[in-house]
Amino acid sequence: MHREAAIRPYRETDWPAVWPVLRATFEAGDTYAFAPDSTEAEIHRAWVELPAATCVACAADGRIAGTYYLKANQPGLGSHVCNCGYVVAPAAQGQGIATAMCEHSQQEAVAMGFRAMQFNLVASSNERAVRLWKHLGFAVVGTLPRAFRHQRLGFVDALVMFKELAT
Amino acid sequence: MHREAAIRPYRETDWPAVWPVLRATFEAGDTYAFAPDSTEAEIHRAWVELPAATCVACAADGRIAGTYYLKANQPGLGSHVCNCGYVVAPAAQGQGIATAMCEHSQQEAVAMGFRAMQFNLVASSNERAVRLWKHLGFAVVGTLPRAFRHQRLGFVDALVMFKELAT
Repeated sequence: MHREAAIRPYRETDWPAVWPVLRATFEAGDTYAFAPDSTEAEIHRAWVELPAATCVACAADGRIAGTYYLKANQPGLGSHVCNCGYVVAPAAQGQGIATAMCEHSQQEAVAMGFRAMQFNLVASSNERAVRLWKHLGFAVVGTLPRAFRHQRLGFVDALVMFKELAT
Repeated sequence: MHREAAIRPYRETDWPAVWPVLRATFEAGDTYAFAPDSTEAEIHRAWVELPAATCVACAADGRIAGTYYLKANQPGLGSHVCNCGYVVAPAAQGQGIATAMCEHSQQEAVAMGFRAMQFNLVASSNERAVRLWKHLGFAVVGTLPRAFRHQRLGFVDALVMFKELAT
């Protein structure tokens, strides 16, 4: 399935298609920490301007099926560990897009010199994501008590997930 | 001992005394992720401009004995958890300054509405700090494999430490 998704670097002309996907995801308030009422400028900064790289996954018809960012998780002496975030368009769920993006991001990370990848705040209620990251080789290395304020469930634990990359 | 240290909000006139303390700490490359060759402007931004609050501990003679920052650890739905960093001046070590600053920061955090405090990257080799944070009620909630590039020891594990604050 996901072999049909072509993943390439983000271009600024992608934004009109990327922003609605990000907005819908963050408005739900069940996966990412970004405030549900974040402005377009705030999200553009966080997803495109601050990261070291941003990519998009394109469906066979050319439409945006997903997007991810990649950046160092810490400065200086922690900068060999990267952090990524992935969002799949609602219409493209269940097609392996997240898997394809995560695998692509790991290859990019290694090419950029990163030695490991860390997810800082995976809502424990997001069972599908936790299961997928585990399947892709990530381990739960920490549990943060009530660290995620889920918009429907209230305070839920957040997981720290980590994978050392083959370099 | 530490009752002699007066803790107050940072003022810009403190910088000439604060910067050498921060620089000496970060140059050692054994506790904080900031690159050992970070510039004064980079550290001013990270310690003073970006955080929600910065404080200093003053010795009886008025000299800077230590400093800390306090900020939200994540945006939006993770912004009820704060993050702090503490640095004690070499000449003021062993006088309870870190304890006094940590206790002060917890009170400040509660006053600002935070519900918990998280340290993201405590070098496991920094045994004195780990022992102190545990003594002050923090738990090790995660271990990040080889996530800290210690300038003498090479890659060492980093700990995630967490404390829920009485609100």
